Amino acid sequence: MNPLDKIKPRVRELKAYTLSPDRASVKINQNENPWDAPETIKRETLRRIQSRAWSRYPDFVPASLHEKLAAFAGWRADGVVAGNGSNELIQATLMVTVGEGRRVLISEPTFALYRQVATVLGGEVLSVPLDGELKFDVGALREAIEREEPDVTILCSPNNPTGCRVEHDELESLLAATRGIVVIDEAYFEFSGQTVAPLLYAHSNLAVFRTFSKAMGLAALRVGYLLAAPELAREVGKAVLPYNLNAFSQTAAEVAVELYESELKPTVRRILQERERLYENLRRVPGLAPVRSHANFMVVRSAIEPKRVFRELLARDILVRDVSGYPMLKDYFRLSVGTPAENDKLLAALGDIFSEEGKETMNAE
Amino acid sequence: MNPLDKIKPRVRELKAYTLSPDRASVKINQNENPWDAPETIKRETLRRIQSRAWSRYPDFVPASLHEKLAAFAGWRADGVVAGNGSNELIQATLMVTVGEGRRVLISEPTFALYRQVATVLGGEVLSVPLDGELKFDVGALREAIEREEPDVTILCSPNNPTGCRVEHDELESLLAATRGIVVIDEAYFEFSGQTVAPLLYAHSNLAVFRTFSKAMGLAALRVGYLLAAPELAREVGKAVLPYNLNAFSQTAAEVAVELYESELKPTVRRILQERERLYENLRRVPGLAPVRSHANFMVVRSAIEPKRVFRELLARDILVRDVSGYPMLKDYFRLSVGTPAENDKLLAALGDIFSEEGKETMNAE
Repeated sequence: MNPLDKIKPRVRELKAYTLSPDRASVKINQNENPWDAPETIKRETLRRIQSRAWSRYPDFVPASLHEKLAAFAGWRADGVVAGNGSNELIQATLMVTVGEGRRVLISEPTFALYRQVATVLGGEVLSVPLDGELKFDVGALREAIEREEPDVTILCSPNNPTGCRVEHDELESLLAATRGIVVIDEAYFEFSGQTVAPLLYAHSNLAVFRTFSKAMGLAALRVGYLLAAPELAREVGKAVLPYNLNAFSQTAAEVAVELYESELKPTVRRILQERERLYENLRRVPGLAPVRSHANFMVVRSAIEPKRVFRELLARDILVRDVSGYPMLKDYFRLSVGTPAENDKLLAALGDIFSEEGKETMNAE
Repeated sequence: MNPLDKIKPRVRELKAYTLSPDRASVKINQNENPWDAPETIKRETLRRIQSRAWSRYPDFVPASLHEKLAAFAGWRADGVVAGNGSNELIQATLMVTVGEGRRVLISEPTFALYRQVATVLGGEVLSVPLDGELKFDVGALREAIEREEPDVTILCSPNNPTGCRVEHDELESLLAATRGIVVIDEAYFEFSGQTVAPLLYAHSNLAVFRTFSKAMGLAALRVGYLLAAPELAREVGKAVLPYNLNAFSQTAAEVAVELYESELKPTVRRILQERERLYENLRRVPGLAPVRSHANFMVVRSAIEPKRVFRELLARDILVRDVSGYPMLKDYFRLSVGTPAENDKLLAALGDIFSEEGKETMNAE
């Protein structure tokens, strides 16, 4: 008797999640905010947490956080669901919609979790590639929607890892074409200067996901949220476990929302300035071609094999993301925008690596 | 077009989770540790958290917590999975094993989540009632296993809400009878003075769930863990989302394990003393019949309708759990063991309610 026989074959075939255990002092591989959460946010969070009983369950529904998020997002509190990272809300949304015979449309390359979860749940994944400029191919997406009638369509906008975004009129044309649910993962919306949240008022089949792990500077705390019509939010909520959000993370998220304008928005502005500076400087490195991005990261086409660039940077204490295994991105690596000092180190290291390469190439000739 | 048409019918039929929003100063409705986490644990946790970057993701796998839990439980670290409450691990275990055509055996009345999650996942739930003394009917469970060949069998031991437990020889007879996976939810094992964890060495189809929400005094933080053979733990881990455990909760759990003997075990001993005192005193209240329990709670049979006892206690600022809607428990309510002062208040209030009832009954005669 082997108890593993009781594991579903689809799960057994799945590779277990792994992440390279590499460490470096310049860590620009996970699109985190390079500045730690401001001291004012940390201090106020710890003050509130200390005075709370840790032995007591958190709120059954984190109503006070939902209300603050509603005000922050310009949406209604009964259409908000907070979760243990937006990953949990992606999973919950797919759990209530996807099973055998259901179809999920995505645009690739994108965040890998959509395909993974939809597959575990027994759904069929339909994929439309980005266009030649690594942007959404909205015409092809609309055709796929009309032809395949997917139950759920998921776009990450700005898209991880390419940084492209879907514009309002484009999204409206997709919403008009589908009879299914459309999910826009806005994990990076703060860096793009726009949000599709206003479209929620006219579209009861739209769901918007957000996170505290990027601009909000709280990746350690695992908080995400969903915005949708109250009826849809309630159905997704059925697949969210009771007490899914711990009291610490709920508190930190409330403080971060309260202090966003004064404490966090300035870091977003600095990241955007640095993104432009990085882009302009990377363009000037022979052998590198950065791709304009609406997020706090960008992909860079590299004349040197990305795996080698990854290793050379790691040898210089810099950790980027090798995305060369993604569809269409064989020649690319991804970097998050760091602090000015981190970006200086990155530019110096890349200048170094690519000028040596130039010399080697010349010597070989 | 109604986007709710895309929600699975099984989910639409499900009632959304709710919890009565009642509040009282004596809160004995959720089996929490009535003493808050000790100051030493809070202080050390906050010290470690403050010096960490909140903007950075937690560990991909919380290896240091897994190692401490392995030492604490007498099991191997590669057979430990920590999660966002044991609820998440229950869900993950069922996600990788249960779908259409799969059978889950439980013994009722018990914790409602097993039936709920198995049902959402499309499994068939088989239920064996407790015996007339509200104890596990091991003979009937064994017969059900032999007859129905369930894929998964789940027992909560000590059982919520009745407090009965499965003995080692009984569990071994069930493990020998089944070709499926057997889950023992040990949320309350610290109060029972025994654990089935040593049986993990001989049984690769056994999984043990535990929590930090009861004896460990950290319900606010949502930490649970699973102990199983490494091969089984790895498969369950595939349904656990990456970064499921936030850095705060991981830190608090590590500190609690480190300081368990000196800081938390004394509260467990006091709870056990109070459990005995409560039991003896409740026995003497005419109209009440408490049931002996191996956990930090007990059910009490009541000559007055439980819903009325619940309301009368709430009017006296005491919140218990009305379990009269559970199978077999029409005449019962459940109470958690509180602090000595809380238990005194409870006993006084129940004495009051049941003596008034006695008078009313006499007046009516």
